[in-house]
Amino acid sequence: MSKYNRKINFGAGPAMLPLPVLEKVEEDFLNYKDSGLSVVEMSHRSENFMNILLDTKAKLKKIMNIPDSYEILFLQGGATAQFSMIPVNLVRKDEKIGYVLTGVFAQKSFEAASKLCKAVNIADSSDKNYDYIPEIKNIPNDLKYIHITGNNTAIGTAYYNAPKVGVPVIADWSSAILGQEIKVEDYALIYAGAQKNMGIAGLTVVILRKDIILKDEDIESFVPNLMKYEKQIKSDSMINTPPTFAIYCLDVLCDWIISMGGVASLEKINREKSKMIYDIVDEYDIYENGISQNDRSIMNITFNLKKDSLTEKFLSSSSEAGLVGLKGYKLRGGIRASLYNGVSIEDTAALAEFMKKFAQNN
Amino acid sequence: MSKYNRKINFGAGPAMLPLPVLEKVEEDFLNYKDSGLSVVEMSHRSENFMNILLDTKAKLKKIMNIPDSYEILFLQGGATAQFSMIPVNLVRKDEKIGYVLTGVFAQKSFEAASKLCKAVNIADSSDKNYDYIPEIKNIPNDLKYIHITGNNTAIGTAYYNAPKVGVPVIADWSSAILGQEIKVEDYALIYAGAQKNMGIAGLTVVILRKDIILKDEDIESFVPNLMKYEKQIKSDSMINTPPTFAIYCLDVLCDWIISMGGVASLEKINREKSKMIYDIVDEYDIYENGISQNDRSIMNITFNLKKDSLTEKFLSSSSEAGLVGLKGYKLRGGIRASLYNGVSIEDTAALAEFMKKFAQNN
Repeated sequence: MSKYNRKINFGAGPAMLPLPVLEKVEEDFLNYKDSGLSVVEMSHRSENFMNILLDTKAKLKKIMNIPDSYEILFLQGGATAQFSMIPVNLVRKDEKIGYVLTGVFAQKSFEAASKLCKAVNIADSSDKNYDYIPEIKNIPNDLKYIHITGNNTAIGTAYYNAPKVGVPVIADWSSAILGQEIKVEDYALIYAGAQKNMGIAGLTVVILRKDIILKDEDIESFVPNLMKYEKQIKSDSMINTPPTFAIYCLDVLCDWIISMGGVASLEKINREKSKMIYDIVDEYDIYENGISQNDRSIMNITFNLKKDSLTEKFLSSSSEAGLVGLKGYKLRGGIRASLYNGVSIEDTAALAEFMKKFAQNN
Repeated sequence: MSKYNRKINFGAGPAMLPLPVLEKVEEDFLNYKDSGLSVVEMSHRSENFMNILLDTKAKLKKIMNIPDSYEILFLQGGATAQFSMIPVNLVRKDEKIGYVLTGVFAQKSFEAASKLCKAVNIADSSDKNYDYIPEIKNIPNDLKYIHITGNNTAIGTAYYNAPKVGVPVIADWSSAILGQEIKVEDYALIYAGAQKNMGIAGLTVVILRKDIILKDEDIESFVPNLMKYEKQIKSDSMINTPPTFAIYCLDVLCDWIISMGGVASLEKINREKSKMIYDIVDEYDIYENGISQNDRSIMNITFNLKKDSLTEKFLSSSSEAGLVGLKGYKLRGGIRASLYNGVSIEDTAALAEFMKKFAQNN
């Protein structure tokens, strides 16, 4: 709230970026590395931009410990496009993917896949309003993959280890990637929309083991090339012009992550930040969070005001205090504080302080 | 080449932006309209961003004279995604769209549609290496639409009027939209990747007459919601998080277009610019352009050095002079100068001067 009169945005995404990342992007905006052009003006096939793209891949590989057997793709259409690209590229239409239904976006990915393959509900926490991560108890023996939503943005739950069920795991890690450590080799495929912890909207990162892709002749004939992983790999994610500026922002963000000591350090900070908020939710009686303790997300902290009439007051007073984006997901209501990498400890402390005072005064 | 040591990028896209547009984006980058946030950090559902989105639509509607019966969509995946979205949304798989094959991208759109409907080649200039816009002579009586590529970026040809054949016309106007006047009501649907004349990469603008979309029950069951125009219209282009920064850049660009007197004024300037280059190509014997006079694009001027050995020299000397992106499309070779709105008369004069001297010295 000091420099540039900055507000603190706790919204679920597009989310706050670390100020040094924004400042670096701004500094180079009119003339990238003395090229005489803005990054937004560069051909995606120019040497300058190809260097950015390759650097970003190399940095991600290092930061996330991505094994050589994986490819990194920079695509468009958000996680939503992946909901459909996963089934068409990885299973024939009569093959099965098991879905763990942990909330709104898990449900959406399940529904999209149901149009394209045999999508099976293998575990589901809808009985308790998705307030926990369900155990996978019975698994059909003919599943080709299982799909999980690593961090449930709308709900406030998260996985901290990939389920071990003897079947390769696919995961939507949109809202926790780069904010907590993810062991890439535990997954066949990871995908994430960039607008939460990977920079700005308009870019989707897909990290996949090359050997899992169906042969082209086994992919349904209606599938556009744009939706084929194999074609995207062969064309360096450039079947069409990629979202160059969003890739560049991720590049700058990777530099910042490295300067901060990597994802392990950021996870430590994020655990500290989330503890600050959960502690207050647990301590003060006006707040409640029904999420199973071990499944609480460190990225998206959801809670309710026990007196529902206080919700609007909480939102308007916090907004007046420069703390914005705290409204819960439309179908859930309540409050949600997203504590992505761009939200600092100081930013979080400001929210904690506000919550404390609000509890004392209401 | 003066301020910020700017180079002049004649590349086909991502392309140069007018300097005042870049400067405005930079000026507001860290704190948009005193919101305390960067545009890239704003929720797509926040009031601030919704205002940007609605403003951009309103400005486009005004600038392009878009009738009320049309919708404007802000999508992802480039023109390439539209190659597939058009057939799945507008025709049943046994219905016909006629394609005019005028070059590389027309061919790509034809091939993508061939997977999804009956795509028919109704006119084709491949006999002369696509150097002209073919007349549509015989048109099957059961065509539901015809598809044209309004400006052929790789070839250097363009339409100046929509073909009148008694069948609704769909057009890829990627590289000339906002650079020359397009009579929207002559088309059922217009689409364009933004990275040429509409700002930055990562955004595709679709302008379509609402009544042409198939009913949902007539769309194939495998089609993801993300690919359905009707669902995109209903969700304000927000089935997934839209490319917010690219939409904002288009908003700033629209302001600049209005300040320049609108598209008619820009077309006048663009005609003047293209004439400067075509005149030199025609005057000096070392250059040649085989494009049919009336079909020459005012956006992408293609030409060859008659002595092929001079091509490399032309490219390296021009690059040394700060004139970049002049290499022709990979499958065509030769030289291509793209003169989008971001390339000024002065920029064009610099190229003209270079070409004159190069001709005199070689």
